Amino acid sequence: MSSPHPDPAVGDLSEGAVLRRILEQLDGSRAEVGPGDDAAVLAAPDGRVVATVDTLVHGPDFRLAWSSGFDLGWKAAAVNLADVAAMGARPTALLVALAMPDATRLSFVEQIAAGLRAACDALAPGCGVEGGDLTVSDTLTLAVTALGSLDGRAPVLRSGARPGDVVAVAGELGRAARGLGILFDRFRDASGAPIAVDPSVLGADEAADLAAQLRPAPPLALGPLAAGAGATAMMDVSDGLVLDASRMAEASGVTLHIDAAVLGADSARALAGGEDHALLATFPGTPAEGFRAIGRVEERGEHAVLVDGRPHDGRGGWDPYQDWDARTG
Amino acid sequence: MSSPHPDPAVGDLSEGAVLRRILEQLDGSRAEVGPGDDAAVLAAPDGRVVATVDTLVHGPDFRLAWSSGFDLGWKAAAVNLADVAAMGARPTALLVALAMPDATRLSFVEQIAAGLRAACDALAPGCGVEGGDLTVSDTLTLAVTALGSLDGRAPVLRSGARPGDVVAVAGELGRAARGLGILFDRFRDASGAPIAVDPSVLGADEAADLAAQLRPAPPLALGPLAAGAGATAMMDVSDGLVLDASRMAEASGVTLHIDAAVLGADSARALAGGEDHALLATFPGTPAEGFRAIGRVEERGEHAVLVDGRPHDGRGGWDPYQDWDARTG
Repeated sequence: MSSPHPDPAVGDLSEGAVLRRILEQLDGSRAEVGPGDDAAVLAAPDGRVVATVDTLVHGPDFRLAWSSGFDLGWKAAAVNLADVAAMGARPTALLVALAMPDATRLSFVEQIAAGLRAACDALAPGCGVEGGDLTVSDTLTLAVTALGSLDGRAPVLRSGARPGDVVAVAGELGRAARGLGILFDRFRDASGAPIAVDPSVLGADEAADLAAQLRPAPPLALGPLAAGAGATAMMDVSDGLVLDASRMAEASGVTLHIDAAVLGADSARALAGGEDHALLATFPGTPAEGFRAIGRVEERGEHAVLVDGRPHDGRGGWDPYQDWDARTG
Repeated sequence: MSSPHPDPAVGDLSEGAVLRRILEQLDGSRAEVGPGDDAAVLAAPDGRVVATVDTLVHGPDFRLAWSSGFDLGWKAAAVNLADVAAMGARPTALLVALAMPDATRLSFVEQIAAGLRAACDALAPGCGVEGGDLTVSDTLTLAVTALGSLDGRAPVLRSGARPGDVVAVAGELGRAARGLGILFDRFRDASGAPIAVDPSVLGADEAADLAAQLRPAPPLALGPLAAGAGATAMMDVSDGLVLDASRMAEASGVTLHIDAAVLGADSARALAGGEDHALLATFPGTPAEGFRAIGRVEERGEHAVLVDGRPHDGRGGWDPYQDWDARTG
């Protein structure tokens, strides 16, 4: 008789067995009905629910040589929690649709679950995974739905910025893009295929840049605080400051003026780099605590965004399929 | 100068352009905040929200030779709406995460959106797509989150069946499995690869079987009605009657007795076939209107489910990867 494999492939286990191991990582349910029935039943205390979905796909969004299962779970949670916080809401629950090849190791799936839970604990205490779905797929895919509560506040939209408002940011800008640069520049082999990160060759700042890319930790509790402090518009910066600011400017019918001098030494990446998931907001007066002023809102001019008075093309961030090879992954 | 391609690949368009074409198919938003901001804001009138997610993946869940974009959108909506209805809730909104290859045609994506909307209109009027996410993936994947409202009712769980209750079903059983059989038996080429369905060779009953597989239309409005009529347990039958009934029996700590005689001529498929998304419920007395009795609940015995007094292995339904070939799709 052979003993069971210590780390079996999920394709060799029942869905129920995989699910049990995932649930062990998730620290129980806080919901009226949690995982295990046809659907979850969650509190929506003010009679409304904030809801968003975002997907991480192997290839366009991550490489397995660079991201651990924990990293993937963390990031999939963080990017969705950021969207809820950017409405001025408090994240209350995640639903996770996980599609993965049969050859995926059980330990990897457990890491994903541990990363989901750790990101909730760190970024949105009280929020947890309350439902989900497991499927077989040729392509590892995490589609996460995040729900949240406005607790009686009005949602803070992209469209509320008004001339005279201060433009402000909470969280770092440019670090995630620097982390991406480290991966592409230093952790690929001669053929361009990604190779495992060797943390011993990184300085402290570089390690922080890499962590910002793989496990972003924006200050999401400031989203509801900004809403309470009168933020007129808010969104999360996922595609780079200039590009996302231009979306806010278009939605609001204004021009956002950004002062590059306050963006730090690497203002190029702060302006163009994506995936930091910082909170961009506008305030009619002094920004809420935790936000720093980076510019001002003016009447709509020719351009949606001006940086030091000049247009900026705003390109940057992760290019889907840059050097992607389905074979090497 | 060349004129634009009449049906471009989505990889040749901006995300915004694809999104606009999708939104044109969706008939507007009924939400406080609909698509276009970081998250949607939806009504949750009784202070709770029902939430579930389910995923359709190219390969394990569908073949492109057999399913149109409209079929896929319809089915992705229907399977999730069924999970909400099976809690006794009224579906209120869908969020759709759509991951697709760059080569996907825009018309195909528009069909998906049209199918999502048509399924909502037919199965859960008032419900619509209120948010989503577009991503690039090597594998076409639809992850749909459905939200719903219990409108003050208690959720109907799997765990509430009690000895003496009547077991009842609303909707058809076995048709979707017959439809799947038609596809595998009659619409593959000599090598086993799926080929397009020729509807002209199908009789009326076969066409209905095929429609049940590709565009399931269970009577989901009966879910909230059953809850109001005192259903003690309920779930949607996605993996076959016997398998899902055994889950209800395990959750409730009872044995479900099913009378095969009332399941029709093709009782084998009614017992084992999956994907009908009929509603299985238990009632302390006469079943709610639209439900038909198929058995009774008794004290827990050796087996979770007995069919005509005998155990039944319950196997059937779609076998993920049966004859799946990533090359021919």
